[in-house]
Amino acid sequence: MTQQHPKHATPDHPIHELIAHRWSPYAYAPRPVPEADLETCLEAARWAPSSYNDQPWTFLLARRQDEAEFETMLSCLLPGNQAWAKDAGALLLTVVRRRFAHNGNPNKAAEHDIGLAVGMLVVQATELGLHVHQMIGLDAEKARQTYGVPEGHDVLTAIAIGYADTSGERTDDLAARDAKARSRRALAESVYSGRWGHPAFEERERP
Amino acid sequence: MTQQHPKHATPDHPIHELIAHRWSPYAYAPRPVPEADLETCLEAARWAPSSYNDQPWTFLLARRQDEAEFETMLSCLLPGNQAWAKDAGALLLTVVRRRFAHNGNPNKAAEHDIGLAVGMLVVQATELGLHVHQMIGLDAEKARQTYGVPEGHDVLTAIAIGYADTSGERTDDLAARDAKARSRRALAESVYSGRWGHPAFEERERP
Repeated sequence: MTQQHPKHATPDHPIHELIAHRWSPYAYAPRPVPEADLETCLEAARWAPSSYNDQPWTFLLARRQDEAEFETMLSCLLPGNQAWAKDAGALLLTVVRRRFAHNGNPNKAAEHDIGLAVGMLVVQATELGLHVHQMIGLDAEKARQTYGVPEGHDVLTAIAIGYADTSGERTDDLAARDAKARSRRALAESVYSGRWGHPAFEERERP
Repeated sequence: MTQQHPKHATPDHPIHELIAHRWSPYAYAPRPVPEADLETCLEAARWAPSSYNDQPWTFLLARRQDEAEFETMLSCLLPGNQAWAKDAGALLLTVVRRRFAHNGNPNKAAEHDIGLAVGMLVVQATELGLHVHQMIGLDAEKARQTYGVPEGHDVLTAIAIGYADTSGERTDDLAARDAKARSRRALAESVYSGRWGHPAFEERERP
């Protein structure tokens, strides 16, 4: 990881480097991901917190080197995502279980908890020099049929894991998207205290 | 952080220590959180990825030292959560925006993206020596009224941030819950390839 990549965050407060350096590429170098790294990324997700420790997540994995499997999963994505995710080292589908295993009641935290588990996966992947890009644009019904996802579960997102192509040799649209700096709303627009719209933190001069 | 705490994960693959050491306490030592640490935790959430970079999250913050504000937010939690969250250093409510800012279409990734942002906050908090515990058990309508949360947004979760009481001096039920080891399903039950129910990784002997 280099500090200079345009996708590295420009934080207003000193955040952990794995969080600052994480970014979601469009241009991947088409290389497989070592098996141990895939296991470690999913192990990180495994230890995420969840409501009632229900672990409402299941992951479906397709490795680049398993060409038929990879093509099958790729075909579950929307065409706009296939165009770039085809170069990922591995693809995942996340599947959410809608009801708690222990009592069958609806789990209102389920989608949130999938996202939190993916957050752990992303931090772990970043440490391993991998890049991750999440997608909501997929054909969930096709994926359900393809993989035999049972009732009570829904395919929620797809995830591309692999190696960002930061060689500088690509001149396509995907590389151009990756050259743009990341931007975010200011904290003052996202964190309130006491009342909606009242910034939680005092304005201060930035150096 | 010590390696020996019962809540530290016992991973089957070598995950990052911040992910392994993260856990969600019930017994908090009632101390405020430094302002800079709160800012850094929320800054970490700020840089999370989201669908169309929509950043569908808003956080409402109540600091322990602002006693009236803290009590007000605490009263939005369900009683079972109030019983322990009262000792947190700060409370947050997460609020989800249901439609994209750029076109008004429904955002199917919104709850997932809140969870992912909270994942970044949790990793950052762990690095700062803080502990985080998420809750879905809250009175969302009361919170909406209390804070004037506008239409199109929903209060989703509450979050307690603070310092786990690991002094060993507490003998209450909360401390007893925190003394239990964490457990998770095996990866073989959560990660499949090719077909639902087919473990993605080969079984191997564990040392």
